[in-house]
Amino acid sequence: MGVGDVAKRVLLGRKLRSSQLGETLLPKRIALPVFASDALSSVAYAPDEVFIMLSLAGASAYVWSWKIGIAVALVMAAVVASYRQTVHAYPSGGGDYEVATVNLGATAGTTVASALLVDYVLTVAVSISSGAQYAASAIEVLRGHEATFATILVVVLMAINLRGIRESGTFFAIPTYAFMAATLGMCAFGLLRLAGGSLPQVESAELDIEKAPGFEGSLTTFALMFLLARAFSSGCAALTGVEAISNGVPAFRRPKSKNAATTLFMLGAIAITMMLSIIVLAKQMGLRYVDPHDLDRLTQNGEPLPDGYDQHPVIAQIARAVFNDFTPGFLFVVTVTGIILVLAANTAFNGFPVLGSILAQDGYAPRALGSRGDRLAYSNGIVFLALMAIILIQVFNAETTRLIQLYIVGVFVSFNLSQLGMIRHWTRRLKSEKDAGERARMYRSRVINTVGLTFTAVVLVIVLITKFLAGAWITILAMIVFFAIMRAIRRHYDNVSLELAADEEDKIMPTRVHAIVLVSKLHKPTLRALAFAKATRPNVLEGVYVAVDAGSTDRLLQEWDDRNLGVPLKVLFSPYREVVKPIIDYATQIRKANPRGVVAVYIPEYVVGRWWEQLLHNQTALRLKGRLLFTPGVMVTSVPYQLRSSELARDREEREQGRVRAGDVRRGRVDRTSSDHQVQR
Amino acid sequence: MGVGDVAKRVLLGRKLRSSQLGETLLPKRIALPVFASDALSSVAYAPDEVFIMLSLAGASAYVWSWKIGIAVALVMAAVVASYRQTVHAYPSGGGDYEVATVNLGATAGTTVASALLVDYVLTVAVSISSGAQYAASAIEVLRGHEATFATILVVVLMAINLRGIRESGTFFAIPTYAFMAATLGMCAFGLLRLAGGSLPQVESAELDIEKAPGFEGSLTTFALMFLLARAFSSGCAALTGVEAISNGVPAFRRPKSKNAATTLFMLGAIAITMMLSIIVLAKQMGLRYVDPHDLDRLTQNGEPLPDGYDQHPVIAQIARAVFNDFTPGFLFVVTVTGIILVLAANTAFNGFPVLGSILAQDGYAPRALGSRGDRLAYSNGIVFLALMAIILIQVFNAETTRLIQLYIVGVFVSFNLSQLGMIRHWTRRLKSEKDAGERARMYRSRVINTVGLTFTAVVLVIVLITKFLAGAWITILAMIVFFAIMRAIRRHYDNVSLELAADEEDKIMPTRVHAIVLVSKLHKPTLRALAFAKATRPNVLEGVYVAVDAGSTDRLLQEWDDRNLGVPLKVLFSPYREVVKPIIDYATQIRKANPRGVVAVYIPEYVVGRWWEQLLHNQTALRLKGRLLFTPGVMVTSVPYQLRSSELARDREEREQGRVRAGDVRRGRVDRTSSDHQVQR
Repeated sequence: MGVGDVAKRVLLGRKLRSSQLGETLLPKRIALPVFASDALSSVAYAPDEVFIMLSLAGASAYVWSWKIGIAVALVMAAVVASYRQTVHAYPSGGGDYEVATVNLGATAGTTVASALLVDYVLTVAVSISSGAQYAASAIEVLRGHEATFATILVVVLMAINLRGIRESGTFFAIPTYAFMAATLGMCAFGLLRLAGGSLPQVESAELDIEKAPGFEGSLTTFALMFLLARAFSSGCAALTGVEAISNGVPAFRRPKSKNAATTLFMLGAIAITMMLSIIVLAKQMGLRYVDPHDLDRLTQNGEPLPDGYDQHPVIAQIARAVFNDFTPGFLFVVTVTGIILVLAANTAFNGFPVLGSILAQDGYAPRALGSRGDRLAYSNGIVFLALMAIILIQVFNAETTRLIQLYIVGVFVSFNLSQLGMIRHWTRRLKSEKDAGERARMYRSRVINTVGLTFTAVVLVIVLITKFLAGAWITILAMIVFFAIMRAIRRHYDNVSLELAADEEDKIMPTRVHAIVLVSKLHKPTLRALAFAKATRPNVLEGVYVAVDAGSTDRLLQEWDDRNLGVPLKVLFSPYREVVKPIIDYATQIRKANPRGVVAVYIPEYVVGRWWEQLLHNQTALRLKGRLLFTPGVMVTSVPYQLRSSELARDREEREQGRVRAGDVRRGRVDRTSSDHQVQR
Repeated sequence: MGVGDVAKRVLLGRKLRSSQLGETLLPKRIALPVFASDALSSVAYAPDEVFIMLSLAGASAYVWSWKIGIAVALVMAAVVASYRQTVHAYPSGGGDYEVATVNLGATAGTTVASALLVDYVLTVAVSISSGAQYAASAIEVLRGHEATFATILVVVLMAINLRGIRESGTFFAIPTYAFMAATLGMCAFGLLRLAGGSLPQVESAELDIEKAPGFEGSLTTFALMFLLARAFSSGCAALTGVEAISNGVPAFRRPKSKNAATTLFMLGAIAITMMLSIIVLAKQMGLRYVDPHDLDRLTQNGEPLPDGYDQHPVIAQIARAVFNDFTPGFLFVVTVTGIILVLAANTAFNGFPVLGSILAQDGYAPRALGSRGDRLAYSNGIVFLALMAIILIQVFNAETTRLIQLYIVGVFVSFNLSQLGMIRHWTRRLKSEKDAGERARMYRSRVINTVGLTFTAVVLVIVLITKFLAGAWITILAMIVFFAIMRAIRRHYDNVSLELAADEEDKIMPTRVHAIVLVSKLHKPTLRALAFAKATRPNVLEGVYVAVDAGSTDRLLQEWDDRNLGVPLKVLFSPYREVVKPIIDYATQIRKANPRGVVAVYIPEYVVGRWWEQLLHNQTALRLKGRLLFTPGVMVTSVPYQLRSSELARDREEREQGRVRAGDVRRGRVDRTSSDHQVQR
């Protein structure tokens, strides 16, 4: 346990045990909130972006808003339909990465992986930034400090995930269902009032929007098309997170794929309903919404607005008006929206380690990430994710509108490759499938995926054209960097694999073992090391002592003789108090004298339980081990001696081992006892 | 090589080799500059402090200045004479710590050690702050930024010492001799002009000093005594660093003690001459010098000075006047003074690791500090020293006058305990000595040390009375903290020692060895581990594989059979991709089945050369080793397989090993080849 751990412990208290995880896989009613928060939370910012884009051409362009909403809804329907095919075909939770790798090859797979890595960072940055804006719309004092508040939120999320949090059950269900209820309820109430003709206006309805420079006068058809394309591509931010379920199939109750597909359908239906309702309501309630950088384009009776004017997010404005300034209603809607945005960010903290683990298994990430329980690698991933998100938040001042420009390109890159992969998948399956019913289903699936690809390809092209200079280039650059790193890691593993490929001569056994036991004092650890070394019956066994001063050397030699150990003691002189080098030199010398033998170095080690004790012991042993490993023909044996305090560490390790890890739930990892790795011959 | 090392390498370039150290012990003419810079540099600030203190009672109190100078000189003479006894009696370089420990016991020894630790920090802070003031007196733009400049200087010194610097020869000799020549030359020239009646006035001579609040009117005898006591105790800052030679005796040429004593005498003579000359000149040249916080007490013709007035250090003022504003002369004096102050700070960087090493040998500091070559422990010490000094510099805004209040108490605590120890030493020696001539010499030595103790005890009392509230309490608090830490470390080592004391049953040999070789793949490292394990002829030998997915398990089992290894393979299932726990459980199980046997776990390890390769390999092995050590009855053997890139690391390690360390020179460590640790039976 390092100093950092102590700090973490003090900061975060005791850790959750995985036995608290709950014992079952997720039923649909729980899986929906667990996996839906990312996708559903998009309605908190996607409609806003549509209105911002259209506002460039003045409020009159808002007539296009619901048409754009329908276009986005169509794309979402196509994507949801496509992913329903994926969860059936690839129920292992590998998601887009697996689909692309299996069907299109490693390059496509790593491209998807880079896109996903970037997206996780952006999910955190965008969701938290949007959440900070909602918070600021309800809490006056936060206004102007959104970036700071967002950064604090990310740090808190990081801390919670470092500690280990149970991502399941009520923790997700209550706020997610509350959000659905609040938003759908608000929309229903609003639409009822619309039908009854009593729909009020939002606070910004009395404002006018001046057209942005370049949009004065009537637009050319091309300019209009381009504007609508931009609005549409911004609106497609609503699709982010739809793919989450395809990565979480193992967490579902059986029949997993079917339940996942049903949940996906529910998610799509709810998301589309919410988004369209909000856009229609906002339009009908006279919303005026511009880029927060262009607030001076908002005017009231031809006069510019006062300096302190604050533009609240669309849902906040609708909530305030629909509930006729009934503050509890407004506060409830805004609060649950803020919470679901934080939950959406949290899904990234859960998805990131899962992706890291899958990449590690394929050799694209450090192998240690691949096995559960490498706390360090795992923590590093979470810290890295938080850090990148904080940088983005700070650089873009927590402005969702700016961050959105970076967001969508990654999502659609993986959508596209995944759809293309699915088409290949069906084509391949069709080659071997004979059953007519199966074939019909496959044809149908292929058509769905083809439609999906067509839609997402169009969106990707539009996104690239409209957003490249606005920020998508940053995402693409980051993807290239991730891609290059993953390929380099894989290349390194491949090279090592080649270098290490076994041949026949590797079986040759050393002809003799020359064992040396390092002696610093004649105490229990040394005696144990001597006994263990003796038990291995080496050809030669001797103690080795590095003499740094005459007094202790004499005492040791005397004691050695008195104890009658039956093992000779070799004394290496080291006038300058160096300990490591004489031993290395001696080992090298033995090996030179007998190149076909092996030198076994036994190091007695103290096992202690407290981090500061670690600083006081074993430092020389550690250094020596590190150096000896570079000496060919040497093997290094640590003979541990457990001091009483080591029990502290063992207990801690066991607690640590049983700790919940982010991503556990979505991998379908449930409670287990230590007896579940059966030993088999 | 960690990331930090890479940064260091980029920052600092290649490291010095110890073969560049020079091959000989130090002759007196080189030893003097190496050890004198700390003591001699004190004249750059000690006289200033005397004048500042006296100025409280107005310029008229300056009549006392040279009398105080003589009092300080007397104390210095007594201290030098005392330390000449020490270098003869304790030539091993243990200095005050050794004297106090041997003669007064461990408590006195650790008290001295705490005092020395605090003093090293203060030496850096005071010398560098004073150096920054000299730099500011010559370089206009630095004025007002002394603390920043001083911090930068400390960081540069830290970097140089982390890299390893040769502390010998011309590096020290040229600037130190230049400083002596410049200062003594300036003083001689000034005194000549004084004799000839042509001594000019310093720039501040035309100013008046208003008495400080509380000192108006004529002083009571008590108030005057107290003022003189304060001035005297500040002047005693001139004594700091005198003890350095007693820690460096091993570095001298033979006869070491005699040469060290002679050098000490020369040092004392030069330091006294310089200090007295400077005080006399300053007084005669009409210096007006006040606390830099009280510049408003300086007036000109009754008017306060303009805001921008800058008070230059005493030596700078004298130099400017003596050389009649001949700028090169002034610049030379100020430059060499600045340089020697930096060298003085550097001696602390050299002394700190030496003290740490001695404390480690006695169990008061982490044992790793005791052997040369623990780069990490050693670097941590240097960074710690620099950090503490920077904190002091920042807190006290690099004001020498403030820092001096903290400085002297530590020095005089160790002076006192050391003198007391020497008196005990002679008394003890006299009990057994028969030879009349020897006895006479011992009596004489004891008288000298008694005089030394009397003087230093008086100074310590005066310092405590006059400076406790002004800052000495900080030093005392820090000493208490260091003291407590050292005792706690020692107590821990003692407890462990007790827990580990050997008894007869420890010799009992395990009855059987059950060896398991961890298998992840069937490649060269695994085959080598199997061969090595086989060579130790255990009672049972088996490969152990943790199966995380069926595909790779089948492939491995197939290959295992094909290769006909003659060793069974045990497969442990781990559905949740955990690797460590199944192995721990299995080892525990074997041990339980045979409590008198030992489980030998062989781990094939990749040895790589680049830090990032380290991240990609062995992480699981590392974690596993850490956990296995907590399992009783298990020994863990690393069987290294050196990848080609490991040669890079081996080369680097060898360069590292040959690197110069701060403190090498003063421990008398000279060039050596790898053949100098003879192997003896």
